[in-house]
Amino acid sequence: MKAPVRAALALCLTINFIAAGFSPRARAQTTQAAVTLDGFTAAESDAERQLEDRFRAVPLPASAREHLRTLTREPHVAGTPEDYRTAVYVRDQLRKFGISAELREYQVLLPYPKHPTMLELITTRREFLKLEEAVLPQDPSSSHQRIIPLFNGYSATGDVTAPLVYVNYGLPDDYAALKKINVDVRGRVVIARYGRSFRGVKAKVAEENGAVGLIIYSDPADDGYTQGDVYPNGPWRPETSAQRGSVMYLFQYPGDPLTPGKPAVAGTVRLKQDDPTLNIPRIPVQPISYGDARRLLEPLHGAVRPAGFQGGLPFAYHVGGTEDVRVHLKTSMDFQVRTIWNVIGRIEGAEERDRWVVIGNHRDAWTFGAVDPNSGTTAMLELARGFGELLKQNWRPRRTIIFGSWDGEEHGLIGSTEWVEENAAELRERAVAYLNMDSAVSGANFGASSVPTLWKLIRAATRDVRDPKTGKSVYQAWQDRVNDARPEAELTDASAGTDAPIAEARINALGSGSDYTPFLQHLGVTSLDMGFGGDYGVYHSAYDSFNWMEKFGDPGFVYHVAAAQIWGTMTLRLANSRSLPFDYADYATEVRNFVNETQKTAARRKLADDFDSKALLDAVKELSDEAARVQSRRKGLLEEIESRVRVGEKEPRAMSSLKRINDSLIAAERALTDERGLRGRAWYKHQIYAPGLYTGYAAQPLPDLRQAIDDRNTTNAREAATRITEAIRRAVAVLKAGREN
Amino acid sequence: MKAPVRAALALCLTINFIAAGFSPRARAQTTQAAVTLDGFTAAESDAERQLEDRFRAVPLPASAREHLRTLTREPHVAGTPEDYRTAVYVRDQLRKFGISAELREYQVLLPYPKHPTMLELITTRREFLKLEEAVLPQDPSSSHQRIIPLFNGYSATGDVTAPLVYVNYGLPDDYAALKKINVDVRGRVVIARYGRSFRGVKAKVAEENGAVGLIIYSDPADDGYTQGDVYPNGPWRPETSAQRGSVMYLFQYPGDPLTPGKPAVAGTVRLKQDDPTLNIPRIPVQPISYGDARRLLEPLHGAVRPAGFQGGLPFAYHVGGTEDVRVHLKTSMDFQVRTIWNVIGRIEGAEERDRWVVIGNHRDAWTFGAVDPNSGTTAMLELARGFGELLKQNWRPRRTIIFGSWDGEEHGLIGSTEWVEENAAELRERAVAYLNMDSAVSGANFGASSVPTLWKLIRAATRDVRDPKTGKSVYQAWQDRVNDARPEAELTDASAGTDAPIAEARINALGSGSDYTPFLQHLGVTSLDMGFGGDYGVYHSAYDSFNWMEKFGDPGFVYHVAAAQIWGTMTLRLANSRSLPFDYADYATEVRNFVNETQKTAARRKLADDFDSKALLDAVKELSDEAARVQSRRKGLLEEIESRVRVGEKEPRAMSSLKRINDSLIAAERALTDERGLRGRAWYKHQIYAPGLYTGYAAQPLPDLRQAIDDRNTTNAREAATRITEAIRRAVAVLKAGREN
Repeated sequence: MKAPVRAALALCLTINFIAAGFSPRARAQTTQAAVTLDGFTAAESDAERQLEDRFRAVPLPASAREHLRTLTREPHVAGTPEDYRTAVYVRDQLRKFGISAELREYQVLLPYPKHPTMLELITTRREFLKLEEAVLPQDPSSSHQRIIPLFNGYSATGDVTAPLVYVNYGLPDDYAALKKINVDVRGRVVIARYGRSFRGVKAKVAEENGAVGLIIYSDPADDGYTQGDVYPNGPWRPETSAQRGSVMYLFQYPGDPLTPGKPAVAGTVRLKQDDPTLNIPRIPVQPISYGDARRLLEPLHGAVRPAGFQGGLPFAYHVGGTEDVRVHLKTSMDFQVRTIWNVIGRIEGAEERDRWVVIGNHRDAWTFGAVDPNSGTTAMLELARGFGELLKQNWRPRRTIIFGSWDGEEHGLIGSTEWVEENAAELRERAVAYLNMDSAVSGANFGASSVPTLWKLIRAATRDVRDPKTGKSVYQAWQDRVNDARPEAELTDASAGTDAPIAEARINALGSGSDYTPFLQHLGVTSLDMGFGGDYGVYHSAYDSFNWMEKFGDPGFVYHVAAAQIWGTMTLRLANSRSLPFDYADYATEVRNFVNETQKTAARRKLADDFDSKALLDAVKELSDEAARVQSRRKGLLEEIESRVRVGEKEPRAMSSLKRINDSLIAAERALTDERGLRGRAWYKHQIYAPGLYTGYAAQPLPDLRQAIDDRNTTNAREAATRITEAIRRAVAVLKAGREN
Repeated sequence: MKAPVRAALALCLTINFIAAGFSPRARAQTTQAAVTLDGFTAAESDAERQLEDRFRAVPLPASAREHLRTLTREPHVAGTPEDYRTAVYVRDQLRKFGISAELREYQVLLPYPKHPTMLELITTRREFLKLEEAVLPQDPSSSHQRIIPLFNGYSATGDVTAPLVYVNYGLPDDYAALKKINVDVRGRVVIARYGRSFRGVKAKVAEENGAVGLIIYSDPADDGYTQGDVYPNGPWRPETSAQRGSVMYLFQYPGDPLTPGKPAVAGTVRLKQDDPTLNIPRIPVQPISYGDARRLLEPLHGAVRPAGFQGGLPFAYHVGGTEDVRVHLKTSMDFQVRTIWNVIGRIEGAEERDRWVVIGNHRDAWTFGAVDPNSGTTAMLELARGFGELLKQNWRPRRTIIFGSWDGEEHGLIGSTEWVEENAAELRERAVAYLNMDSAVSGANFGASSVPTLWKLIRAATRDVRDPKTGKSVYQAWQDRVNDARPEAELTDASAGTDAPIAEARINALGSGSDYTPFLQHLGVTSLDMGFGGDYGVYHSAYDSFNWMEKFGDPGFVYHVAAAQIWGTMTLRLANSRSLPFDYADYATEVRNFVNETQKTAARRKLADDFDSKALLDAVKELSDEAARVQSRRKGLLEEIESRVRVGEKEPRAMSSLKRINDSLIAAERALTDERGLRGRAWYKHQIYAPGLYTGYAAQPLPDLRQAIDDRNTTNAREAATRITEAIRRAVAVLKAGREN
């Protein structure tokens, strides 16, 4: 489901320099063996490195290609027989690799289009729009009969006729700009372009502004010809292609709309489908192509468009809103409670079977899902094949490894959310971390989003995997790419006239749009999300196909292999390390940045004195200090174990101390959640990370505080600051208790 | 000639805060009478204000409309009979207002197209491009028979057939990006889009890179539909419209190509037309519309375009360079020595007739020139009418006022350059300042470029003229517009959480592209350039017409009136003030910024130690200190005069002291020139300001130093820094001598 974020990844940079005092370029040249892996004694580290080498030799392009070929043979929307067949395939593959695996079903509210949508332009003449993606001779699967018509999941059924207003990206600021020029959207159909916010947010904001229908189109400036050659000549979106996708209000809660907070299984009491608290829109919403959008936008006149409203179609955009250009939009949806199928695999831990490292990827797709999500499924299967080889050589991980092949993600993170809600109690106690890969490969550019706890692990693992294109490490290729995109002025500290160290590539905050959301934001499980991005304009279209992947995304299937290697390397380190390589110092640094940014925004709005930032920054300082003490203690205990084992001791006391520290490192993330939940959306418990109410995909760090400042609400700001401070203090207390055990 | 710079004006901001310690908003509310005008005693200031009020009441929309109507009745390219008729009109108008006026002729090398250019696309089939601007029923003058065909002035005559390469804006960086992907333009025809550099620079860079021909087109992203509705529905460039313009290498020297540094009059020895040092290209250059450009660009394939190459046409741009897409370009130019006509008007000064305040505007146009330049001509005529009314009331300025209505500006600043070269000796001694207005009105947004000496005068004068649209002062409307365009974060000093004063709108550096160039950059005369900009896409096209102006540019002709009022107010202050209101403190601040920026660039390129920035900054400090002493001395002398006159003294000694200070204020700018001239272009004498060798319109402050750093040439950098330091020291010495007289 996750939308491509190519540009953002390339341009967001850390504002922190590397603490160690050497540049990343220098570090990358360090040979592997020279560095002891974090969390292992020196001897263990050597063994782990050998194990990892054996693992990384297993994933192969030919095998990856075969998985993707099989998974993308037919469209497999959640809840369909084709979807079920992919579940069986994944289960059987895992079993074949020696990993136990089962299907797990849920009964959830899942809409499909009952009839294809009708969209009619009414000017001096009437014209029906096509709303169909063209069959391309160069892409055989584009003629498949089971490609689902263009629709937005959870759009209401509706039939409206009204003047049309162009609302740019449909952000709150866009409506504000329209209000400024006296354009009112009440009672009108609005047309917004995709991008800059999650489409569910566009629906919510349109509804809040009184629109009676929403059309969302893909502007060529955003993922069409303005970006590059269009499919099948290039990887970008062609004229007839549109972006399907859910408009669930997942910033309120994700998962089955009828069972918020509870698993959608027999015995759970369900909400009614007409319950006003459901996380779905009440207006019809329809995605269209830029070929169709041109028919609607070109006749618009009315007010001069505000700055920034122009897109890539070859005429000056107008906002419309006049009576003589109207549209007739008729959607017909089939809402049913249907069955979806997760696949859950498991490798039992040898020493800590009640500590779970969870890795996951969704499997359902809007059409063929070559990129989204089955490049990730392919990477997971190659990873599993690699672990299978290790199992054959009698390896057992220290901790249990769980595989989740989620269903219903596209409709609204449903499979993962229901599973997390079902297993909440166990996960709270046992989950070490959740490692997500959704669209694992649409190009060659590595990018990651993560809680800061895992930044060092991500950087370390990518140093040990080869980038297929450049032959350097993935880490180095990633840094080089980001540095190439930086303006010259940022590359060195010019005022000093010397080579100051260059900031490392930014690892983004987790917002929403993929399956880490229930783990991190509902339960407080340390999480990350990652993948290789690239020029990818066929997102959620009929052209996200095997042919697209073979021609453009990853012709040699080498990045599928690299994705499996990185993911597996991280999983092995988390599963095997004696001491978990979690770092809360980075967390403290990042939260301090969030607080500083928030303070600046507040100051601009004259709200600086309205919350206690000092208490907040004091708590962050305590976290930073405690994190340093924990790191030092971990190091000391590992050294003690090393020396005692060398003299023959079997179970030094330090081992159990480390275990208690491990538990505190896991529990500190849980401590950042608050049972009361976020304001107006209690399902979201995490006090630091949540999807923005008005951004959707993008994270809104310190969500309740930022929202209060956006709303200029002093009372809420104070309360939010207090809750965040309490959460950080709880985390500090947990870490301290673990360290002093 | 000056190209529109809408966006740049809005976004360039001073980095200096206002010294006076109050915000510009507060200042604007000060009533006029409360402030004594700089350079006048209190009593003189009151009289001056009354005089200015009488002047500003004269210019009227109806009268302005009539001038523009007359001036734009037919196309009037330099050297044509129609151009001559406009000269006679301006001369006769000045005479009618009681101002003496004469024509002054020069014989200069002036090309017209002999035959319209032929441009043919050769792919699998052959296609001739139209190269014609459409006749629009809504704009009667668009059918005029004397509209000159689309051509670039000083293009060579040529006939070339070669593969076509798209080179983006044709900047050196664009060719570097092409080299990186192994695209060679040698022996090929290149197509560049207008913008980001002067078109003569595009020709020079194409030639340097070995191209055999250059096509320049107007991309819709830059001034067509991407910006807004196209003519006749809106002010932007329609599909068939192209931008004429000179490709003279005016960054080498402007004016008649055959007489660099000397006036093009009888007796001057002329260079041969084939002299290799002439300031003109050797390859054919042709401007085309985006309608025609689409025919050429759409079939291009070849390499993937580098980042930033995509424009606004509805397909993915490619760079081409393959044998199967070629063009045939045939230009035929008629180079002749022809006569051009300046009009020189004069109001004799009553007390200092050998001190000249020169104001100027060009009169020749590529077609009708409603905006460029005759909105300026109209403003000058309304200004002159106003001065005529004052003359009738027996006013005489203290100093002489000279009016220049320049010819041949479009071909290459020819009329002004020849006049300056002819009168160099007198101007060096007598010229107080040169105030230029080229395109005075294409909208409602005031903007100015100037040497820093005049910043305070510009701000003061715009405070005393009403902005027609908002009813505020022009100054206030200007600041408000610039502030509205600033990101929220810049508006206040957020870290302090308080309202710090807001920086005033930026006044830009003078580069080239209009007639101030010979005054400032050849002679060292204190100069400025200004006007009201807006949405203006018909630059140098057949649609820069009276109809365009009446529909879009200035329907009520009220900004023509405002332009005349501002220009006249400044002229009166410079002509009447006892003490010239010049401020070298701002000059020192600005040069310090230039030095700091240059140092940063040098540091990034590891050239920081290669020139003596300390000596340079020391000189700037001396300038700053001396400027403060001069200001204090001026103030003291004015007060002394005030008190002595009050007790009946007629000619206090202080008056002659002030005159000597005036002369030093004039001479200090001359001292910033160096007779040796800039490296490789000796015509340019000014050490602080010149057009960039590779930018053309835009200024390249500290030109030789910046160029040396761009070239990474240490020897040149040292020498340039030394010369600049010397120039500043000369200016300090001149100011000091004047002050200590």
